[in-house]
Amino acid sequence: MPRYKLTVEYDGRPFSGWQRQANAPSVQAVIERAIKAFSGEEVTIGGAGRTDTGVHATGQVCHADLSKQWPTKTVMGALNFHCQPDPVVILDCEEMHEGFDARFSAIRRAYRYRIHNRLQPLTHQLGLAWHVKHELDADAMHQAAQEFVGHHDFTTFRHSRCQAKSPEKTLEHFSVYRDGDFVIAECSSRSFLHNQVRSMVGTLRLVGEDRWGPGDITNALKARDRKACGPVAPADGLYLTRVDYRPAQVDIDSLVEWQARKAEMAAVETEA
Amino acid sequence: MPRYKLTVEYDGRPFSGWQRQANAPSVQAVIERAIKAFSGEEVTIGGAGRTDTGVHATGQVCHADLSKQWPTKTVMGALNFHCQPDPVVILDCEEMHEGFDARFSAIRRAYRYRIHNRLQPLTHQLGLAWHVKHELDADAMHQAAQEFVGHHDFTTFRHSRCQAKSPEKTLEHFSVYRDGDFVIAECSSRSFLHNQVRSMVGTLRLVGEDRWGPGDITNALKARDRKACGPVAPADGLYLTRVDYRPAQVDIDSLVEWQARKAEMAAVETEA
Repeated sequence: MPRYKLTVEYDGRPFSGWQRQANAPSVQAVIERAIKAFSGEEVTIGGAGRTDTGVHATGQVCHADLSKQWPTKTVMGALNFHCQPDPVVILDCEEMHEGFDARFSAIRRAYRYRIHNRLQPLTHQLGLAWHVKHELDADAMHQAAQEFVGHHDFTTFRHSRCQAKSPEKTLEHFSVYRDGDFVIAECSSRSFLHNQVRSMVGTLRLVGEDRWGPGDITNALKARDRKACGPVAPADGLYLTRVDYRPAQVDIDSLVEWQARKAEMAAVETEA
Repeated sequence: MPRYKLTVEYDGRPFSGWQRQANAPSVQAVIERAIKAFSGEEVTIGGAGRTDTGVHATGQVCHADLSKQWPTKTVMGALNFHCQPDPVVILDCEEMHEGFDARFSAIRRAYRYRIHNRLQPLTHQLGLAWHVKHELDADAMHQAAQEFVGHHDFTTFRHSRCQAKSPEKTLEHFSVYRDGDFVIAECSSRSFLHNQVRSMVGTLRLVGEDRWGPGDITNALKARDRKACGPVAPADGLYLTRVDYRPAQVDIDSLVEWQARKAEMAAVETEA
């Protein structure tokens, strides 16, 4: 059964997030409906990141198993046709090895956060960026963002209902820079906690407005207390921009290993 | 009576254009309502360019006369407050001399046209750019665009219901360039005919797709026939980006001259 990797872009505004839900529109449901319309098959797709309500993507990744082998261009074209008029498009489609899993094979997720930093309210950028009126010091934010980089307990910077077993994560990279009226924050990590990027960006805003100084981020991390977090940035400015994967051989090896173990266990069960 | 020059940005999507109409939303009506809410005054504002339904602006200019002298920051802040939640904002406010007229004092209008040139449908850019699937040759478009520059009869490139007395205009500048997935066209002129930019861009697209070659633009101009125009580009990608004005002294001189002439005419009328 061929497995397809889909790279997905979407405007998060009309959706209650990535994940399929009973009574709310989701990106997952749009793509699953498009697959059904194209191939007649009811499939459940797995996504690399479960983005929240209103969060955008320019490089979300998911995988889908189809019973028939199709040219990847045909899959992409058909899904883009059937996703319309929802603002969801497949940017790329690749056929993958059986061991590939959009979520579990991922070794890096990258997010971008866009702040529109100007006095006037937003027009074209409404819902696509966070409007911050006071002039932000992007350099100070970049400096402070380095305090997040590395292995930390991110209890302060995760949603109180975050379901991850451990609050410990290793942030690989965090940069903040100014681009005209915009302040752009970009970070990457193997994986993120629920609301982690928005919690970090919301707190960095306090640094950009000179209300927090050097070391305050480190103190907030050390507090391991959600109350030490700054006001969480809204979904509007957040984009899942890229997901990186381990080399195919690693997936295949671990699949072979897992199948061997399953065979062993089946043998044990038969013996019992 | 102080006259204020307002630089205006708006998202054209919800509006039937700039100009106030009886039963349709317009940018002009939003600003006039905001002025009334702020100052209590019913004013009619004059705009530099009457943009069509769905056309955007990042640098439209209008003027408004208020009976009281206010700090320009107060005017800008109050209008931005009262324009909400419509996607219309005042980017700048200046107090001007009496002879200033947003429309008649203008010596140059500049437009930008954004083409999102990729295979996949649009998501975040829906309504903010024109989606063209086939890969465009931006260099060929730029070369061909130079055939529009200079003084020409633009009959071919204006709306069949364009009300301008003369179809002759002098295009000062036209450049087309690629920026990633986008092809951007920028042009400026003292003034434009109705639908002129969209007619020119729609025709340049034929050049970008190699359906028209060198000289075809010139032939279309020479035809002086609306039927020689390519398919008109949609409103989505069009932005009025800047309006330039003559030096204040020229306005003041022409006002003084006009007042003298009015006095002369009044004297003649009295004599008669």
